[in-house]
Amino acid sequence: DRLFFSATHEEIKKGATTDIYFIKTMEILKYMGLENTDVVAEVFPRKAGIMCGVEEVLSLLKDKNVEIYALPEGERFSPKETVMRIKGPYGEFGIFETALLGILAQSSGWATAARECREAAGDKVMICFGARHVHPAVAPVMERAAVIGGASNASCILAAKLLNRQPSGTVPHAAMLIAGDTVSVAKAYHEIMPPDSPRIILVDTFKDEAEESLAVAEALGKALEGIRLDTPSERGGVTRELVYEVRKRLDQKGYNYVKIFVSGGLTPERIRELSEAGADAFGVGSYISGASPIDMTMDIKVVEGRPVAKRGRIPGIIENPRLKKIK
Amino acid sequence: DRLFFSATHEEIKKGATTDIYFIKTMEILKYMGLENTDVVAEVFPRKAGIMCGVEEVLSLLKDKNVEIYALPEGERFSPKETVMRIKGPYGEFGIFETALLGILAQSSGWATAARECREAAGDKVMICFGARHVHPAVAPVMERAAVIGGASNASCILAAKLLNRQPSGTVPHAAMLIAGDTVSVAKAYHEIMPPDSPRIILVDTFKDEAEESLAVAEALGKALEGIRLDTPSERGGVTRELVYEVRKRLDQKGYNYVKIFVSGGLTPERIRELSEAGADAFGVGSYISGASPIDMTMDIKVVEGRPVAKRGRIPGIIENPRLKKIK
Amino acid sequence: DRLFFSATHEEIKKGATTDIYFIKTMEILKYMGLENTDVVAEVFPRKAGIMCGVEEVLSLLKDKNVEIYALPEGERFSPKETVMRIKGPYGEFGIFETALLGILAQSSGWATAARECREAAGDKVMICFGARHVHPAVAPVMERAAVIGGASNASCILAAKLLNRQPSGTVPHAAMLIAGDTVSVAKAYHEIMPPDSPRIILVDTFKDEAEESLAVAEALGKALEGIRLDTPSERGGVTRELVYEVRKRLDQKGYNYVKIFVSGGLTPERIRELSEAGADAFGVGSYISGASPIDMTMDIKVVEGRPVAKRGRIPGIIENPRLKKIK
Amino acid sequence: DRLFFSATHEEIKKGATTDIYFIKTMEILKYMGLENTDVVAEVFPRKAGIMCGVEEVLSLLKDKNVEIYALPEGERFSPKETVMRIKGPYGEFGIFETALLGILAQSSGWATAARECREAAGDKVMICFGARHVHPAVAPVMERAAVIGGASNASCILAAKLLNRQPSGTVPHAAMLIAGDTVSVAKAYHEIMPPDSPRIILVDTFKDEAEESLAVAEALGKALEGIRLDTPSERGGVTRELVYEVRKRLDQKGYNYVKIFVSGGLTPERIRELSEAGADAFGVGSYISGASPIDMTMDIKVVEGRPVAKRGRIPGIIENPRLKKIK
Amino acid sequence: DRLFFSATHEEIKKGATTDIYFIKTMEILKYMGLENTDVVAEVFPRKAGIMCGVEEVLSLLKDKNVEIYALPEGERFSPKETVMRIKGPYGEFGIFETALLGILAQSSGWATAARECREAAGDKVMICFGARHVHPAVAPVMERAAVIGGASNASCILAAKLLNRQPSGTVPHAAMLIAGDTVSVAKAYHEIMPPDSPRIILVDTFKDEAEESLAVAEALGKALEGIRLDTPSERGGVTRELVYEVRKRLDQKGYNYVKIFVSGGLTPERIRELSEAGADAFGVGSYISGASPIDMTMDIKVVEGRPVAKRGRIPGIIENPRLKKIK
Amino acid sequence: DRLFFSATHEEIKKGATTDIYFIKTMEILKYMGLENTDVVAEVFPRKAGIMCGVEEVLSLLKDKNVEIYALPEGERFSPKETVMRIKGPYGEFGIFETALLGILAQSSGWATAARECREAAGDKVMICFGARHVHPAVAPVMERAAVIGGASNASCILAAKLLNRQPSGTVPHAAMLIAGDTVSVAKAYHEIMPPDSPRIILVDTFKDEAEESLAVAEALGKALEGIRLDTPSERGGVTRELVYEVRKRLDQKGYNYVKIFVSGGLTPERIRELSEAGADAFGVGSYISGASPIDMTMDIKVVEGRPVAKRGRIPGIIENPRLKKIK
Ligand SMILES: [Zn+2]
Ligand SMILES: [Zn+2]
Ligand SMILES: [Zn+2]
Ligand SMILES: [Zn+2]
Ligand SMILES: [Zn+2]
Ligand SMILES: [Zn+2]
Ligand SMILES: [Zn+2]
Ligand SMILES: [Zn+2]
Ligand SMILES: [Zn+2]
Ligand SMILES: [Zn+2]
Ligand SMILES: [Zn+2]
Ligand SMILES: [Zn+2]
Repeated sequence: DRLFFSATHEEIKKGATTDIYFIKTMEILKYMGLENTDVVAEVFPRKAGIMCGVEEVLSLLKDKNVEIYALPEGERFSPKETVMRIKGPYGEFGIFETALLGILAQSSGWATAARECREAAGDKVMICFGARHVHPAVAPVMERAAVIGGASNASCILAAKLLNRQPSGTVPHAAMLIAGDTVSVAKAYHEIMPPDSPRIILVDTFKDEAEESLAVAEALGKALEGIRLDTPSERGGVTRELVYEVRKRLDQKGYNYVKIFVSGGLTPERIRELSEAGADAFGVGSYISGASPIDMTMDIKVVEGRPVAKRGRIPGIIENPRLKKIK
Repeated sequence: DRLFFSATHEEIKKGATTDIYFIKTMEILKYMGLENTDVVAEVFPRKAGIMCGVEEVLSLLKDKNVEIYALPEGERFSPKETVMRIKGPYGEFGIFETALLGILAQSSGWATAARECREAAGDKVMICFGARHVHPAVAPVMERAAVIGGASNASCILAAKLLNRQPSGTVPHAAMLIAGDTVSVAKAYHEIMPPDSPRIILVDTFKDEAEESLAVAEALGKALEGIRLDTPSERGGVTRELVYEVRKRLDQKGYNYVKIFVSGGLTPERIRELSEAGADAFGVGSYISGASPIDMTMDIKVVEGRPVAKRGRIPGIIENPRLKKIK
Repeated sequence: DRLFFSATHEEIKKGATTDIYFIKTMEILKYMGLENTDVVAEVFPRKAGIMCGVEEVLSLLKDKNVEIYALPEGERFSPKETVMRIKGPYGEFGIFETALLGILAQSSGWATAARECREAAGDKVMICFGARHVHPAVAPVMERAAVIGGASNASCILAAKLLNRQPSGTVPHAAMLIAGDTVSVAKAYHEIMPPDSPRIILVDTFKDEAEESLAVAEALGKALEGIRLDTPSERGGVTRELVYEVRKRLDQKGYNYVKIFVSGGLTPERIRELSEAGADAFGVGSYISGASPIDMTMDIKVVEGRPVAKRGRIPGIIENPRLKKIK
Repeated sequence: DRLFFSATHEEIKKGATTDIYFIKTMEILKYMGLENTDVVAEVFPRKAGIMCGVEEVLSLLKDKNVEIYALPEGERFSPKETVMRIKGPYGEFGIFETALLGILAQSSGWATAARECREAAGDKVMICFGARHVHPAVAPVMERAAVIGGASNASCILAAKLLNRQPSGTVPHAAMLIAGDTVSVAKAYHEIMPPDSPRIILVDTFKDEAEESLAVAEALGKALEGIRLDTPSERGGVTRELVYEVRKRLDQKGYNYVKIFVSGGLTPERIRELSEAGADAFGVGSYISGASPIDMTMDIKVVEGRPVAKRGRIPGIIENPRLKKIK
Repeated sequence: DRLFFSATHEEIKKGATTDIYFIKTMEILKYMGLENTDVVAEVFPRKAGIMCGVEEVLSLLKDKNVEIYALPEGERFSPKETVMRIKGPYGEFGIFETALLGILAQSSGWATAARECREAAGDKVMICFGARHVHPAVAPVMERAAVIGGASNASCILAAKLLNRQPSGTVPHAAMLIAGDTVSVAKAYHEIMPPDSPRIILVDTFKDEAEESLAVAEALGKALEGIRLDTPSERGGVTRELVYEVRKRLDQKGYNYVKIFVSGGLTPERIRELSEAGADAFGVGSYISGASPIDMTMDIKVVEGRPVAKRGRIPGIIENPRLKKIK
Repeated sequence: DRLFFSATHEEIKKGATTDIYFIKTMEILKYMGLENTDVVAEVFPRKAGIMCGVEEVLSLLKDKNVEIYALPEGERFSPKETVMRIKGPYGEFGIFETALLGILAQSSGWATAARECREAAGDKVMICFGARHVHPAVAPVMERAAVIGGASNASCILAAKLLNRQPSGTVPHAAMLIAGDTVSVAKAYHEIMPPDSPRIILVDTFKDEAEESLAVAEALGKALEGIRLDTPSERGGVTRELVYEVRKRLDQKGYNYVKIFVSGGLTPERIRELSEAGADAFGVGSYISGASPIDMTMDIKVVEGRPVAKRGRIPGIIENPRLKKIK
């Protein structure tokens, strides 16, 4: 009995996620004796963004008789720039068009949003907290794309493992709510975590953020790495003024080594604002994980050596010296 | 060797896609002797939408010692309405928060967009063509959500199988480009397809749409179910006037039984316009598959019988008579 | 030695606040033998509003040989409606034009703003807290105008005395800051105030508003009339969600008799929002006291029985059956 | 029997215009034995502007045991800049908070508006004609603030006296309406005024402004200092074109020494326009006198040497080297 | 030697104003033996409007072997409605397409603007004063179209003659400027005009409009039909307030029989405003004469009995029961 | 019997298109003995533009006893700049004011619009195709004004003749519709036209523009000068992408010598866009011919040597060194 509706690696590999019309296309072409027509296909995006997903495309086609040229992951592309070119018999790769475009479109969408956050955060820590907004089957795909785009780290376990890293994260409101108190959770956390695991404590659960920040700082002393502000929108969210005030109040009590980590509805614009106000690190959720895919189109541009194109497109390949041969 | 970065069903089931901080929370609670604290948690959305993902959540928690209440899939929810309630020892489900919220957030986002298209299309056929914009691992999840939201059918093979249906779709530009001609592909298609498979032919590849529509109608006669207009944006896209003109020109030649299927950048507003102008069926891509997840939040509201809440939320459960006990 | 730059009652009465050109006018008219020309002058406003200031105008002219007709205080006027008419020798009142228009313009501006707040507050308590935005010389004039416009009460001592009332108000942040704690101030307040003085305690000085509300309610029990929310803009101000949450948390602990009083940047629109969210009373500051005067113009319309007017105005009086003879 | 509702100097001085809650605060603090707590309070504005009112604040507190530091009158302040600091036992000045803030808020509002007009007028004459829009009790306060902000002079008698000047002004429409003619009033004015009093005649009462300007110029010859254009809004107000035309027509007849004084609904923008078109002097009314107060806040920042602050503010004083010790 | 560049009636009639490409078309069709192909052509507008120009089209084609069906002049048409249909050998009318469309486009544009003014003016007099904005060759065409659209009369001599009317108009500023005075011109006008010619005098040349209106009324007594307000934009134009005031001042002196005629930059919106304020008649210039032509298109829809159309249009005639056979 | 409502040259010359009030003015002035008053009149425009119509004004007044100074045709004027000055007895030219202003207003309006198109087109060909939007009587006036403004050529026969040129133009949709095919018309055109007449063929009548362009290029070979794109708005109009694609497809087949001529709703902005995309020539219709006249005003500024002016204007002439004496 199937647990989830997500496709397994094997289903993807054998083409089960293909749109039916590519299957029909193959049947017709076979009937017309054209299934092994030699073609060149090109992929282009509709908008500017950051390239991501190439490694998975290579897995998808690795045992097929095709040449593949692609823009490297992490590079910036322009609208309508050729980002991938595939040469070979159409029958070798035709049915993978749906999967291939989906991989590139969604990963590039996530990587692009992460890049915008990175540019806003400058050299400061910026972590992807977006796993809770996407299906768990793609959570690690999304977090990997975020890291390629510029996130400092991933927070979900599997993504971190795929990236050969330790995942980032502290404790959520749930711990405080069950324990009934922030300071006792902070102390327990400090007690049991390995020494190299940073002590960052969430301070907005029950009490005023400034009050709780000082209480936690007093309880953990020099061991405290930072506090996290995640004020809910119902209470005005995390504002510039709140960050500035907490910074000042910590400094006045001698806790100038305590970092301020912020989260909750962050966007590049809010990252800039809060960074200026004194925030040291950022946890970004839906801005990255809810980013729309960047629509990708695959066009057949050469058929048996002849340039072709449908109406609206230019026949023949469109040169791009930035493409690398990857297969 | 791993083919793709997407999580397998087993990885999801055992919590590998969980944010690390839920793991840490469990460690702390154990240290404090609180891991089996009896709690009630509630999930609420930030925006209005259509509920989807409940069946997968049930799979996720089916062998856990918890009670679950949920809004049925396909029902409309309001902002901040309680859509799911889980009762039981926190240790039974705490680490699944990330996966559970991700399942609901993304599926509900897709179902909600599909519902908007359904309302625009009225009783006409409206198919999801969006698989090419998402990672293949979630393509069937997305298409199933679209059907729950109101799409007439799915186009990817696996999604159709999971829904116990035949997938929808005809042939793409690729077939015409390789064959070099639309009419010969149409004839081949007619030749080899089973009688109950509808003949719908794409007519904008090489020639004027009106000209090609008439040529295809002449070639296939009464066998032709419909033509598909998918004019690229570079040529002005599919407009009201184009649909109206093709309809009139088909009718004037006696082809009033030929349906007009439209696709390409459709939105609810464009569906309404083109439907008025005479379109009979709609293929919707990125409007559904690129829909943003609907942010879901899980709050612990009762701890050992006591109402609790973090700042900004109301302590205790929020009644909702529309919830059904599903476990 | 003069303490303040504000005019004394005697200075006003003898015309010392008159624009110099009215003095010059009298000199010229005397020189031309026209100082006792019989005239009718009319006053009209430029915008719609609420009439206020008539009683002071009567004081100004009470020993002059003129007839005065005026719209009663508290009534609504339209743009260009005649709100006052003065008949008599020009020499009797000419030099008081500046003072008379100033009295009407500013009091009507304040009364009009208060009326808008009253309409937003419905039957709930709405107090003017605006004295701190105007010069103390006019603070009681302003608060009286606010009460005529619809405020439930005044907060400055002199205004209340002139209106034969007890002024409204509790204690400001200063008391808590000096005492270092909200609950001890609340207890002292309860200790020393006469029984009929309502116990309303400000709860946002040091701690989270919900936390402090419950602490104060516990400390004062049934004696507590209400709490006041005045969250500063740096912390997001008083929001709908905050009012709703504090209401719910008070109710859950059995303090449903405790009223919620709100203040801080209130406008008619915010009064409506917060009232819907559960606020019981409103303290309005700059919306009333910072209201612009309503420009008033006095025109001579009849000279020795002949209708006259400058360019742009209609010669002769403009009838208004709502005017009452007041002198 | 009281003539007006405005507070007398004595009432202000003894605290009668204080909000009741400061009185209650003192009672509570006394009860708690804290009335002589040593504090530092700071005042800051919400918006940028021009400082005004310091001299009256000094009068208010001159016999109290406090130190006062303030930004000098006429200087520009920024939002949230410390503009005044008071040190001493809270009991010495606490009840004067309402009056002190009101003095600063309203005077600074007026001075700020006057400064904007000054900047628009450059080196040309700009007089405050706004007394008719405010209560006569504050008319001299307002005109003094306008002069501090940059007005060339005041028009009300008492304000001029307080500033040791001669008030500015000519004759209003009333004189012409009573006399029935502009030229005869102009001649009478010339006859009786001392030689050093400038002859500026209002020319829009009965006839076309250009026609009347020439008639008045002919009647008074070299004695005419200027004409005043005050065309009512019903006749299109004073426009650039009107000023330009009157200037040209005066010049063509040899009256190039006659100045053009304009008034009626002037704003900084209109001052700039009309100045370019040839206007030589400006009478500004409601833009100055109807300016909203600039909200001022007083915070206790130090209590017995300890930095304190309510939520949203930073504990301790905020240094400002521009403050001068004034007491 | 030619005086003007405008085409004579004979030049138009023989096709000299035809676009050269229609001439070339005829040559090619002759060469292909197709010049007498039987066709049906239809004319449609791009926007809604009022039909005008039919009579001239009939003149253009009256000796050609064609049938013509047209919407009657003065009727309202919708966008894309068939407003004219021509049947016959293409050679009979092909070269007249340019002239025919130009006649309809421009006359309908003018008639449509006049209709809007008529609707704004209700039953009041509304005259076209627009001849000064168009080339004299088309001034009578424009004024005739205005009358068909709804103008009460024309002001140019030739237009009036073609319409069998007396032209409307009084005297312009030039007469007053030369005579140096308005009243003396008014008297001379009254002296020499035939009794049935209405006495309407322009009153804004030298003096205030209200003053001059009364002077003219006094001079002409019962003989005065009306005064005309045409205040230039430099003096604020004719405003609602000016019309209202002049009306009141005339009435107060017993001249309630004197009409108020307004002109100068009138639009439908201003006609409505001024009509409400008391204006009795309107002289409209550039709103009518500067109206853009309504783009008309002629399509060949039937060729030798077969429906045809270029891309974007529907083959065959588009029925319209409102067409009348006119030839 | 009169064929058209347009005025003949003789009617214009003898004043028949004059507004009746100029005739009345002459009668009054004669009655007052003022008809030969010596005056100077000046004409000024309300907006900036390009001067046109001077030659016709000269024809209008050539046998009158006046001096005329004018800005040369084709020069740019500013708002309110003096563009023409006439000196002489008023009786010599007074009645021609209507005609003179109409000539200048409309021709300058057309020339101004053409200049904007010229600036957008740079050095490329830009032809006026606007005759079909104006009455045939003024079609040659309009096309001449367009050429003065900057159009490369005229398309109507008479205009070209007046300008001593060959008119521009190819064949319209009508020829293709009658012949039933584009290529055969292209061939016939090539057959019969003189060798120096450029072969430019319209390609959007029946088929896809790119397809038809290639078919025509193949049929005519090196003889083909260009193709014309005139895609109707119902099919998205001529877009940047269409021009770019047709250019590329022509080049790929070796037809890089074939020019792309565009038409249909062109504006300066669209000319810029399409020029960038590769268009070589532009046919502009309603943007030029539907341009509003530029309102011109004639003021009498000197009467018998005395500067005069109506209210709102400056008495006396306004110098302009750019005027040339033309009579
Ligand atoms: Zn939080
Ligand atoms: Zn989130
Ligand atoms: Zn397509
Ligand atoms: Zn798509
Ligand atoms: Zn507060
Ligand atoms: Zn305030
Ligand atoms: Zn005035
Ligand atoms: Zn004023
Ligand atoms: Zn005029
Ligand atoms: Zn005009
Ligand atoms: Zn076309
Ligand atoms: Zn056109």
